[in-house]
Amino acid sequence: MNVRITGTGVYLPQKKITTQEILSTAKNHKNTLIEKELLQIEKSNGVQSRHVASDELGETTSQMAAWAILVALKNANLQPTDLDLIIFAGAAFEQPVPDTSVLIQLKLDLSKHGTPCFSIHATCLGFLHAMDIANAYIQSGRYQCIAIVCSEISSKAINPHDPHTYSLFGDAAAATILTGTTGSSHIHHSYITTFSEGAYYTEIVAGGTRKHPNHHQCSIEDHSFQMKGREILKFALPKSQDVLDLIWPNLSRTTVDLDHIITHQPSRIGLLAFQRFFPIEKTTNTLHKYGNCVSASLPLTLHEAIQQEQVQRGNKILLFGMGAGLSIGGMVLTY
Amino acid sequence: MNVRITGTGVYLPQKKITTQEILSTAKNHKNTLIEKELLQIEKSNGVQSRHVASDELGETTSQMAAWAILVALKNANLQPTDLDLIIFAGAAFEQPVPDTSVLIQLKLDLSKHGTPCFSIHATCLGFLHAMDIANAYIQSGRYQCIAIVCSEISSKAINPHDPHTYSLFGDAAAATILTGTTGSSHIHHSYITTFSEGAYYTEIVAGGTRKHPNHHQCSIEDHSFQMKGREILKFALPKSQDVLDLIWPNLSRTTVDLDHIITHQPSRIGLLAFQRFFPIEKTTNTLHKYGNCVSASLPLTLHEAIQQEQVQRGNKILLFGMGAGLSIGGMVLTY
Repeated sequence: MNVRITGTGVYLPQKKITTQEILSTAKNHKNTLIEKELLQIEKSNGVQSRHVASDELGETTSQMAAWAILVALKNANLQPTDLDLIIFAGAAFEQPVPDTSVLIQLKLDLSKHGTPCFSIHATCLGFLHAMDIANAYIQSGRYQCIAIVCSEISSKAINPHDPHTYSLFGDAAAATILTGTTGSSHIHHSYITTFSEGAYYTEIVAGGTRKHPNHHQCSIEDHSFQMKGREILKFALPKSQDVLDLIWPNLSRTTVDLDHIITHQPSRIGLLAFQRFFPIEKTTNTLHKYGNCVSASLPLTLHEAIQQEQVQRGNKILLFGMGAGLSIGGMVLTY
Repeated sequence: MNVRITGTGVYLPQKKITTQEILSTAKNHKNTLIEKELLQIEKSNGVQSRHVASDELGETTSQMAAWAILVALKNANLQPTDLDLIIFAGAAFEQPVPDTSVLIQLKLDLSKHGTPCFSIHATCLGFLHAMDIANAYIQSGRYQCIAIVCSEISSKAINPHDPHTYSLFGDAAAATILTGTTGSSHIHHSYITTFSEGAYYTEIVAGGTRKHPNHHQCSIEDHSFQMKGREILKFALPKSQDVLDLIWPNLSRTTVDLDHIITHQPSRIGLLAFQRFFPIEKTTNTLHKYGNCVSASLPLTLHEAIQQEQVQRGNKILLFGMGAGLSIGGMVLTY
């Protein structure tokens, strides 16, 4: 049985803010650190605007995920009850227990249907691992219609005093419906690897058993996303060539086999690094308008590329990303 | 390709405390709520002792997981570098980013090897979903040698003023190594379902996007495990019969097909409820000595049953559990 991306869908929070608006707010709050650095940072990180989820509008992690799944199901001409499995593959959970997939199933009104669900966590590469799992499930006959959804509200876990991360991340949810098919759609190959020497380049320190709020004084920094961007690139780039060639033969030297490439959207510098390998005319980028949406960047950018017909049925595409871990991975599929 | 449990392993924290010792501590701290109720509770929840992880002894979530994997690998006569994939399937992470599987890979000194890893979260049923994923991966040829590990330090996230949960949970790590085989070991069938109407019967409220510590005043209660035990049983029991018969034909009426049964170890009342369906002479229980070890209870109890030769090669066994979600699931396999 082959595997087909039958539908994709996105939910973007209603509120959209530009870097200029962040700057104005920073001025009002006399947050001079932000004020001084922000415009400089927009130039360097490439994010001009990003969406921000609002509790008042009911834009919770699980609700945004459910809305994205409903769009994807509509595009697939399917109903929620057609789903055999829901995988939540986001980095930021709604609450520690139960796992977020349960709350998404609740929002989709599937409790009586009993639809199986679980969460996977691999930070920015959660979507790739979930695609890999869905592929194995469909091939082995375990499940036949699977929703993968990434929903991220990074705005809650960024430090307003760290202009680098504050202006980089955006909130979004993006879903993909996968079904078994006897047609030509197919996942050809995937390869994901983790180099844990880089484990502490990207982290949120507090909230788990390492620094639990019931036992430690935890600061805003401890509960916020911290990223050593330069160190990541210095660590990851020398490894990229070998990893690329394990994803697809000669991928570090040529993309001649591929019609289109969807990458994670880490930052402007990250995208420039990817351009060493992937010609810009074969890629779709969403960083400038949505920011780095963590796990949701890959399926969100895939959705946009499909909507804009940059990815069409029968195209051979690469999904590629790097994430906390440090992990690097990719998947080649015929859409 | 069939799937074989090639090795199992457990790590139990060095410190073991009896309910009597908790009572003495409570007396010293003049925690009268605990003092009054604790002995009563031992009778009702059935936990006489539990292990408690200690930072001073280096017993972190990832280190305990790595130690359990090393034992399982030794029992399987394999090396860490033989692993194609590590799945962390615990409910309580070490830190929110990176995911705990990365930190386990680091402790196993596999960074240079680049062993793929990710986490899955389905609270007490994480192990079952991970077994299901590993089965699909091995069957589809994606990975051939997989470590699943559940490591739980619940002692950090229990409220000392709630005697019900305070005395119920225990810390432990348990690992299982799965490999492809042409022999008779085989996963026959699995079925896992979630009824999200019961989502809020078991929860930890704070720490994610719902109640984030950077935006809310969070109490000890908010960061602690809360469980409505009676409501869970009232909600789950009427559904059990149907679910059991979807796990294995007629399972609600007979276990004649099965040699042995390993269940999650929720509480004494939970185990009594399971005994409606599973004769006690066919089960192994570990609740009294280790407490409810959340996701680790299933693989820990499986390991003990194998060590005590209650489960032997060629036996057909059932793994069964209930967890936050509310989820119910089971898997029948030939060991």
